[in-house]
Amino acid sequence: MMNTIEWDDDTETVKLIDQTLLPVAYKIVECRRVAELIDAIKRLKVRGAPALGAAGAYGVVLGCINARDTKELKAEMEQLKHARPTAINLSYGVIRALNAALAGSTLVEMKENALEEANRIAVEDVAVNKKLGDYGSALLEDGDVVLTHCNAGRLACVDWGTALGVIRSAIEKGKRIEVIACETRPLNQGSRLTCWELNQDKIPVTLITDSMSAAVMRDKKVDKVIVGADRVVKEGVINKIGTYMHAVVAKAHKIPFYVAAPRSSFDTERSYKDVEIEERSSEELLFFAGTQIAPLDVNVYNPAFDFTPFELIEAVITEMGVHKSISAKFDSVIG
Amino acid sequence: MMNTIEWDDDTETVKLIDQTLLPVAYKIVECRRVAELIDAIKRLKVRGAPALGAAGAYGVVLGCINARDTKELKAEMEQLKHARPTAINLSYGVIRALNAALAGSTLVEMKENALEEANRIAVEDVAVNKKLGDYGSALLEDGDVVLTHCNAGRLACVDWGTALGVIRSAIEKGKRIEVIACETRPLNQGSRLTCWELNQDKIPVTLITDSMSAAVMRDKKVDKVIVGADRVVKEGVINKIGTYMHAVVAKAHKIPFYVAAPRSSFDTERSYKDVEIEERSSEELLFFAGTQIAPLDVNVYNPAFDFTPFELIEAVITEMGVHKSISAKFDSVIG
Repeated sequence: MMNTIEWDDDTETVKLIDQTLLPVAYKIVECRRVAELIDAIKRLKVRGAPALGAAGAYGVVLGCINARDTKELKAEMEQLKHARPTAINLSYGVIRALNAALAGSTLVEMKENALEEANRIAVEDVAVNKKLGDYGSALLEDGDVVLTHCNAGRLACVDWGTALGVIRSAIEKGKRIEVIACETRPLNQGSRLTCWELNQDKIPVTLITDSMSAAVMRDKKVDKVIVGADRVVKEGVINKIGTYMHAVVAKAHKIPFYVAAPRSSFDTERSYKDVEIEERSSEELLFFAGTQIAPLDVNVYNPAFDFTPFELIEAVITEMGVHKSISAKFDSVIG
Repeated sequence: MMNTIEWDDDTETVKLIDQTLLPVAYKIVECRRVAELIDAIKRLKVRGAPALGAAGAYGVVLGCINARDTKELKAEMEQLKHARPTAINLSYGVIRALNAALAGSTLVEMKENALEEANRIAVEDVAVNKKLGDYGSALLEDGDVVLTHCNAGRLACVDWGTALGVIRSAIEKGKRIEVIACETRPLNQGSRLTCWELNQDKIPVTLITDSMSAAVMRDKKVDKVIVGADRVVKEGVINKIGTYMHAVVAKAHKIPFYVAAPRSSFDTERSYKDVEIEERSSEELLFFAGTQIAPLDVNVYNPAFDFTPFELIEAVITEMGVHKSISAKFDSVIG
């Protein structure tokens, strides 16, 4: 299977697995222009913080191919950076590849530089996830049942995954791990993507609704919780809506709650108060696959992310190690 | 608008609002035989503990009309009682109407007795809800935002509602109350039913996903939580899956968590451990309105209810009053 996102040299396109169609259909989308990539990002055909880092970087390559000049390129890259506001990796990827590009003196040279940097980001992402997974796997014991939310797996990255990467690494070391996947409303990345990719790897997984997490914890069916992060800030972690709820109930049941995220998701100069939490369309709650499920004139609140303070997080797992009590010694950990 | 469930003398049928079609279509279903009513209950065309009490009682009337003898009637009533296992009201309604019926000496007399008792249960239900609403309304202040889960409204009862009845009573007394409705996966009774009936009454309501409740509590957007109950047992309350999660996060945010339930939902001789928690079909999580949303071979855990201990419940509201610290003095309260 191809990676979540790849550059295709023959067609000069960014190829990505269309995540809106899974698990019913497995289809590859090719983006030839930055506008197409922005559209794919907004529609969540590609999503997940680390995957968005690679998408941003490959977007610079598309920009170099199609832009008339550096001014146009820069303007388009501003648009790309803001296709989705919350995950920091998107702008991180754009900035890295754009800086590499701007070292070139012609658009052709710029494109070559951007592609080299983008490929480096993609390769790094997999290496980082494997390292992160390796560190995190030490936290899991043989026989553990791990609850996860949304999709912080291979499909959220270039490959391997962050939260699911930790699980894959533990299994690779011979530990038997089972997963409980929360479906993750409103867009069901848990049921559609996490269940799909774990099934592909024959990792045992049980699907529940998001609201069942407290009940399964109370019934002692959960040993650990691991989620990803869209942005790690000064006071905690911004991640898919529902993460905070799972963290609160995990704390109440004394179940360790871990966040797995590469350092490219860190933005620790910033307070969570200064991060824009994307509010998505009310249609995501009014309709389901085209079927109306609420009165059309009802008011809807649909933030895509929430904030979880470090106080609720047992450890943050990065490619540098397992960082416990991070709120106390946070600056030194990520310095 | 008709009540949620009614007896129709002309056609000798139980008429009910088909709750599986709301909010897209408002359609009345007529049940002529017990088997049809059992089917409607299993498919959740009628649901909600108090409404199931009336449904059970009217089912006895259908049984008296169609049964050949008392033996057949009793056998059919056993089936009806177990159409859904968790809410106690269903068997409560069946038992009350059946006892009334059995005092008759012919099937015609039995039918008349059952109908009288069933109508009494229906009338009582509305009166009880209004009384309960009246007591509960004292807990709400002008300007309060109340979070609720599932549908404990008019559609869960014959009329008025339990949790939503408290809100209706407070509004009737001139208080401005806004509601946050959790969509309530997997069957979306919150988005489909609660939003619909509050919209009908022009009560302001905002729809969120279940997993957002902790985040909106943290953002200080919730003043109180009120839910209904399918069964009140010795140590707490059994209600729609997700109730326990909301109770845990409400406690963590020091937000009062109230349960509104008529005494007909009380079964306080029994421990929650001895109540069957209905597990429903995996299809409820694998499909949404016919659209596949998960790999079909994934394992699914789909309990329809969970248990919330009294420790997390600020007060239980019944037609007898507001019962605080119920875990400490529970026996005397409901004696």
